[in-house]
Amino acid sequence: MATVNAPSTHTLVLPHSLALDGGQELDRVELAHETYGTLNADGSNAILVCHALTGDQHLASPHPITGKPGWWDRMVGPGKPIDTDRFFVVCANVIGSCLGSTGPASIAPDGRPYGMRFPVITIRDMVRAQVALLDALGIGRLHAVIGGSMGGMQALSLAANFPDRAERVLAIATTARHSAQNIAYHEVGRQAIMADPAWQGGEYYGTGQTPDKGLAVARMAAHITYLSEAGLTGKFGRQLQDREAKSFGFDADFQVESYLRHQGLSFTDRFDANSYLYITRATDYFDLAEEHGGRLVDAFAASQARFCIVSFDTDWLYPTAESRNIVHALNATAARVSFVELSAPYGHDSFLLDVPALDRVVKGFIQG
Amino acid sequence: MATVNAPSTHTLVLPHSLALDGGQELDRVELAHETYGTLNADGSNAILVCHALTGDQHLASPHPITGKPGWWDRMVGPGKPIDTDRFFVVCANVIGSCLGSTGPASIAPDGRPYGMRFPVITIRDMVRAQVALLDALGIGRLHAVIGGSMGGMQALSLAANFPDRAERVLAIATTARHSAQNIAYHEVGRQAIMADPAWQGGEYYGTGQTPDKGLAVARMAAHITYLSEAGLTGKFGRQLQDREAKSFGFDADFQVESYLRHQGLSFTDRFDANSYLYITRATDYFDLAEEHGGRLVDAFAASQARFCIVSFDTDWLYPTAESRNIVHALNATAARVSFVELSAPYGHDSFLLDVPALDRVVKGFIQG
Repeated sequence: MATVNAPSTHTLVLPHSLALDGGQELDRVELAHETYGTLNADGSNAILVCHALTGDQHLASPHPITGKPGWWDRMVGPGKPIDTDRFFVVCANVIGSCLGSTGPASIAPDGRPYGMRFPVITIRDMVRAQVALLDALGIGRLHAVIGGSMGGMQALSLAANFPDRAERVLAIATTARHSAQNIAYHEVGRQAIMADPAWQGGEYYGTGQTPDKGLAVARMAAHITYLSEAGLTGKFGRQLQDREAKSFGFDADFQVESYLRHQGLSFTDRFDANSYLYITRATDYFDLAEEHGGRLVDAFAASQARFCIVSFDTDWLYPTAESRNIVHALNATAARVSFVELSAPYGHDSFLLDVPALDRVVKGFIQG
Repeated sequence: MATVNAPSTHTLVLPHSLALDGGQELDRVELAHETYGTLNADGSNAILVCHALTGDQHLASPHPITGKPGWWDRMVGPGKPIDTDRFFVVCANVIGSCLGSTGPASIAPDGRPYGMRFPVITIRDMVRAQVALLDALGIGRLHAVIGGSMGGMQALSLAANFPDRAERVLAIATTARHSAQNIAYHEVGRQAIMADPAWQGGEYYGTGQTPDKGLAVARMAAHITYLSEAGLTGKFGRQLQDREAKSFGFDADFQVESYLRHQGLSFTDRFDANSYLYITRATDYFDLAEEHGGRLVDAFAASQARFCIVSFDTDWLYPTAESRNIVHALNATAARVSFVELSAPYGHDSFLLDVPALDRVVKGFIQG
């Protein structure tokens, strides 16, 4: 059995400037990425995994700040559904993020952090950077591109905009366009960050103050949308936190309050508030049909890839109807597409959690 | 045709101190209230309408700050479903609120505003104050108690705790207990307020600073839960606000962003942040079963009232399943109960909006 490469983050400086949908160009773009497994001689065994909103390149290696296992550790590794004994797996931190790739916390050419001078980016811009990374790694055509949530948007965008670059496209718990409700939740998060005086118009780097309170509120509001109502009830119900009776005060009486506060606070240890602004904006701007003349079917017209679209029955952030919308467009182009709605109690976050049926779908699709 | 009384707010100072569920007593409680119509000789034509979270006594009279029509103007008035030519209608601002009833902005016995020294109150405490008002108005037994959302909680609580005080109970778009998800959303709002430095631990009265930014974020997050995903899509979709193309910036590009920002900001003109903390806490604490030994059926055991429970098919804040839960408990006590799920596109807010089917249900139930 081959041993998996030691997963450590490498940083590629893109050899060319990156032209952005907003009309600007980014120079000296850095892409932090990890690879697992070995690229075979003809370069045909590469899988690109795209991470979600606040994810990163630590796909199956411990997170450097939290020490927790990689976010898809259960899915990626020797003998796992995405088998690193067979496949060369690449995962890059998206541009705009804060785990090593160029984003608002990066130093601009003038020697100061970009802050809000960083250009607004799109999902397609993220994908352009991913493709530049593939070029640098000598990967012409991916065996597969895979992603959940915002990672799924990238997978779909790659299929639409670089139709020759992937044989298989696996998009999980995602959508072809952000809905009004999706935008609304992100706008609440952005307003929470911008309302924090420590945000300072985004110029907080080096001031010793960061908008942690605003970012924590943003994360709390978003986190609820990642879970299902039934999942929250099953996990917490109205159970009290370390007490026998209600305190008649504003402490976190209920377990769900304590849990949410923890989710908010711990997030601020690992994520940059400005990156949160930029990445939520990128997803809000995402509308694959709009990019292709208003018809989603035209987005996929040039693709020869095989598609697999997966939704979860309790996901109300990107509900099954959004996946069906994608499948209908693919069907209209006579694409090869399989679609499955999986049952799992965890809501949107199901794609990250222990759902054995997802493992089987992923394994079957990439080996098929 | 009789003319409706000029609707103006009166304030009752409760003659006795109010014993609270938290163990404290509130002295000199003031209840701002409006009445419409005329109480008949035997006092049998009174209807108590209970308002929702951020509602007030301006049921069918213009709001003193916004100038907008009363929140249920369409439902209450001469010849309207709650016909003030026939009924004497009472609506009081709940304790804890900020439109004239005693709340955290009120002056405590020591001459300073209560702020966070105000005791945490419950829905049952609100109802105790409502019953004291009925006593003062000479109303022994209500023809009906009616409310939507938190108003529905009060209606159910009155039926459970003062079973002789209402002949009819109409509870709309409500629940018998706050779910984990309900609590989670409220906790996000509270944290947003408390994260605002202008909150100052609740001691902002007279400082010239109020936590408007935090309160606006709280309102934005909550407001999304009042609407339906389909309703948001139908109303806003991905339409841009006063522009032809996306700005690639952080302005409110999308109409839904502009709308939400307006909802948040305008709310701060009419509502006190500390009241928002206390009233959300009261609803989070609401669990009618818990108050009655853990069995909801026991809550209604002593009631002889007729019940009507109404839900809306697009309400995901208090979905139909919550109403069914109430109906099942009522059925188990052999109560007279009718139940209807109405179809309306507006989500939870349907109870406030133009849903003619609701008018018919309300009219039929109170005249039956």
